[in-house]
Amino acid sequence: MGWEELVAKKRKALAELIPEKWRIPADILPADSQHSVISYPETSSLLSDEELTITQLTVKELVEKIASRKYSAVQVCEAFCHRAAIAHQLVNCLVEIFFDAAVERAIELDDYLFKEGKTVGPLHGVPISLKDQFRVKGVECSMGYVAWLGNIDEEESVMTTLLRKAGAVLYVKTSVPQSVMCCETMNNIIGRTLNPYNRLLSCGGSSGGEAALIALHGSSIGIGTDIGGSIRTPAAFNGLWGIRPSHGRMPFAGIRSSMDGQETVHCVCGPIAHRAEDLAYFMKAILEQEPWHYDPKVIEIPWREEKYNEGRTGKKIFGITTVNGVMGFDGVVMPHPPILRGIQMVVNALRRAGHTVVEWQPYKHKYAVDLVRKIYRADGGEDIRNALTLSGEPAISEVAHDYGPGANEKIDLNTMWDIQIKKYKYQQEYMAIWMERNEINAWIQPEAPHAAIRHDQYKYNGYASVISLLDYPAVVVPVTFAQKETDIKDLNYKPISDLDMQVHDEYQADVYHGAPVAVQIIGRRLQEEYVIGLAEQVGRALASS
Amino acid sequence: MGWEELVAKKRKALAELIPEKWRIPADILPADSQHSVISYPETSSLLSDEELTITQLTVKELVEKIASRKYSAVQVCEAFCHRAAIAHQLVNCLVEIFFDAAVERAIELDDYLFKEGKTVGPLHGVPISLKDQFRVKGVECSMGYVAWLGNIDEEESVMTTLLRKAGAVLYVKTSVPQSVMCCETMNNIIGRTLNPYNRLLSCGGSSGGEAALIALHGSSIGIGTDIGGSIRTPAAFNGLWGIRPSHGRMPFAGIRSSMDGQETVHCVCGPIAHRAEDLAYFMKAILEQEPWHYDPKVIEIPWREEKYNEGRTGKKIFGITTVNGVMGFDGVVMPHPPILRGIQMVVNALRRAGHTVVEWQPYKHKYAVDLVRKIYRADGGEDIRNALTLSGEPAISEVAHDYGPGANEKIDLNTMWDIQIKKYKYQQEYMAIWMERNEINAWIQPEAPHAAIRHDQYKYNGYASVISLLDYPAVVVPVTFAQKETDIKDLNYKPISDLDMQVHDEYQADVYHGAPVAVQIIGRRLQEEYVIGLAEQVGRALASS
Repeated sequence: MGWEELVAKKRKALAELIPEKWRIPADILPADSQHSVISYPETSSLLSDEELTITQLTVKELVEKIASRKYSAVQVCEAFCHRAAIAHQLVNCLVEIFFDAAVERAIELDDYLFKEGKTVGPLHGVPISLKDQFRVKGVECSMGYVAWLGNIDEEESVMTTLLRKAGAVLYVKTSVPQSVMCCETMNNIIGRTLNPYNRLLSCGGSSGGEAALIALHGSSIGIGTDIGGSIRTPAAFNGLWGIRPSHGRMPFAGIRSSMDGQETVHCVCGPIAHRAEDLAYFMKAILEQEPWHYDPKVIEIPWREEKYNEGRTGKKIFGITTVNGVMGFDGVVMPHPPILRGIQMVVNALRRAGHTVVEWQPYKHKYAVDLVRKIYRADGGEDIRNALTLSGEPAISEVAHDYGPGANEKIDLNTMWDIQIKKYKYQQEYMAIWMERNEINAWIQPEAPHAAIRHDQYKYNGYASVISLLDYPAVVVPVTFAQKETDIKDLNYKPISDLDMQVHDEYQADVYHGAPVAVQIIGRRLQEEYVIGLAEQVGRALASS
Repeated sequence: MGWEELVAKKRKALAELIPEKWRIPADILPADSQHSVISYPETSSLLSDEELTITQLTVKELVEKIASRKYSAVQVCEAFCHRAAIAHQLVNCLVEIFFDAAVERAIELDDYLFKEGKTVGPLHGVPISLKDQFRVKGVECSMGYVAWLGNIDEEESVMTTLLRKAGAVLYVKTSVPQSVMCCETMNNIIGRTLNPYNRLLSCGGSSGGEAALIALHGSSIGIGTDIGGSIRTPAAFNGLWGIRPSHGRMPFAGIRSSMDGQETVHCVCGPIAHRAEDLAYFMKAILEQEPWHYDPKVIEIPWREEKYNEGRTGKKIFGITTVNGVMGFDGVVMPHPPILRGIQMVVNALRRAGHTVVEWQPYKHKYAVDLVRKIYRADGGEDIRNALTLSGEPAISEVAHDYGPGANEKIDLNTMWDIQIKKYKYQQEYMAIWMERNEINAWIQPEAPHAAIRHDQYKYNGYASVISLLDYPAVVVPVTFAQKETDIKDLNYKPISDLDMQVHDEYQADVYHGAPVAVQIIGRRLQEEYVIGLAEQVGRALASS
């Protein structure tokens, strides 16, 4: 079968998995010309009041209300399945749908609660969406590759197993870019996933399907992966919270990925959700399952509630990435006006809330960005091209650019070791800075130099990738939305490089109007609890300012 | 200057660093024909009673007796310098001597105690010997390479810094094999380091200088490194205790090594000493310095006294590596009779002490040994040959065999990633076995298939290297000594491979008579405290049986 046929078959099968009753009637389906669909689920009257209520609860509330039998797990499951089906029809975010299995599981959970008088675990009845790299028994995992369609998994990722153990309900897998090594979400299988705030904009990537789905409350919490921003960028582009945990904190075993076996910069997995509290609740729930008994790379560090509480209380000192007096600038690519304003809002809010904000000089970020890019492209694209060749599908434009024949040469093993020495040295140098400026509790910088970007315009992930190279925990905090009235393009700006110019040129105040703006809160390695706590404070400061 | 000249200069300088008063008079220097020199320091009357007493104290006792002013730090320092000088003249174990700096430091420590009324830290006044990979300001670090002579370090390894912070006194660096990638200790700089129990036998490697020095009580505790047995083999060959901690527990930053930047199987550092208690005391002392603030690879897990206590008390269940009913056999290379008897002694002692001993089927050890060997030799020897070329020195025989031109081909990057996938999968499979046999607290196997081996006869490090691949903590426990009367060669044994035959053929009961025999106690990743505790129980059981 040719790749186009495989795709046609997949699209048809996927469409059929949306129950008829949940298909949006043609007459009320928003036209392509309607850019924002973020309010559609609430305004369309397709969902019942109860479904709307359920799908906007926090994760903790969901568990509590199922435990207290206010809602059954089945009710909750169906509400999310319904809303996810609607979300998909708006932004094309799902690649695997298994509502039937989900309802079956919810029935089991209700039975268990009825018979045993207690919940299965801390995620009892919570529907959790998974990026299409996680393996679920009986479900395909194509990861944006046509050739991988038909790979029905018989084994599961450790995370999948632990989610079940904690009582979660699995119901969908969300779309990813071809190869997952991109910061937008486009593949030849289901096409492009759109940003619900503005469908002319990207939902980010590679966990773009997750973020688009969650933004529409088709999921209360989902799990993405991040090797250079793939959790954080979609969270930032969709007005959500997300955490890139340090490597070794969350189980990654059994997750499919590109360039599998590459261990120089680790891909990690972590949640995307609507609130800091959801991130904390989720990580605690997973750590209670003792993932270090299932994945040899997970470190035996249980959830440390005291660190979380330490982060979320008290007056703190935050560093703000600053170059040449421009707060938010990493010295490589100047952020667009909405981001600079977002950073200023954060600074103002923190100061108003009594915190201290100081300058944080980014240390050799250009060097680090170049170094980590070499790692991403270390095999010259061989692994990715092999996967494309299997089906004959063409590379999407981002993949062609970064991994096409001749784009990069494969690195020799000793060169890779040199890169690993440099990485370690860079980590040591950054650690020395933290030690010198020991009073600083966290460091804040943009997640990207722009708000959610126009399709196919993503060019610079250095704000995110440096953090991956350093292996620091980073929490994305949504700040505001681009405003054409205030976020005026600086026509006198003199770009410092071609790349800087390209990014600068991309900005147009009216095109970006309404695009989500976010920052990331960055802490020291393995301090996830503390950083989530600090991010919560940032969120609180913003909300009350 | 040619390499021979560099060596001659180094040897002369080293000899001159032994103060005249501590040079062993020719008439009482043991002749080469005297094989065992282990008792010489005590019997020669070169050391005072006080020096003998001091140099046999535990680490904790040393600190306590300095703190209580029973001994001054200077007294302690001089006693160890003196005994180290004697040890060196017997077994050729030192490559760097800096007694003057040590005494100066001891004076400072005494002053501090006098003025402040308290100690500097938990290692106040303890002389600690370092393998010649650790960097000490103002001292050479040649790592067995002639070309690296003259490299006077200006920066220190993180471990060095933390030792100073904890109050330790540094006074010597000990010899290593050329390149450190060998299991015996021979280089062109100072030649061969000998085993003090029998100078016809190897002291093991690559931390061989450490173990030979410590066995002679020229050091109470020293630090080695281990990528495939380099702490454990010398400990085992010299009747000592040693721990290979999991990667990320002890700081490795700033330590010189071969194939630097290779991160597929990590080299780790850890102590070698006379007792389990010393290992525990040392690790606790280092973890109290919070190494995770100095080395980005160190995990923030403080010393967990409760795990240590849990390990050292209560009746436990131990697995013993067993194949075809032969306890101690890994299925690849049959241990020599002294090792099989040693294992049986451990089993008997544990049972007598009320513990349970069960069979542990080694899981695919042949596969793992082959896999990890590919990693050790991944660059086809390029890095090591480059270091040799710099000075023109010849490769020692072990290096020529493993890393000489044409011995192994350099691996392609994607092949290395495949190896990394296999390693991770193997770790996952072994973890599943631990989970299945959850009742087992630790697993015991020989450290090597033989007691301390004859020079240049070391051939199989699989008993150690599999543990490195798995990244498990392993503690070496000395058991007994080879006995020609009981350890009779099995002339009917049918070797299962060429390698097995070579190792089998090497055994001769009278040649090995008196050679130290040891086992290793192996636990789950990052469970150092627990495994040391368990090892202590094994030691206690052996002592009382």
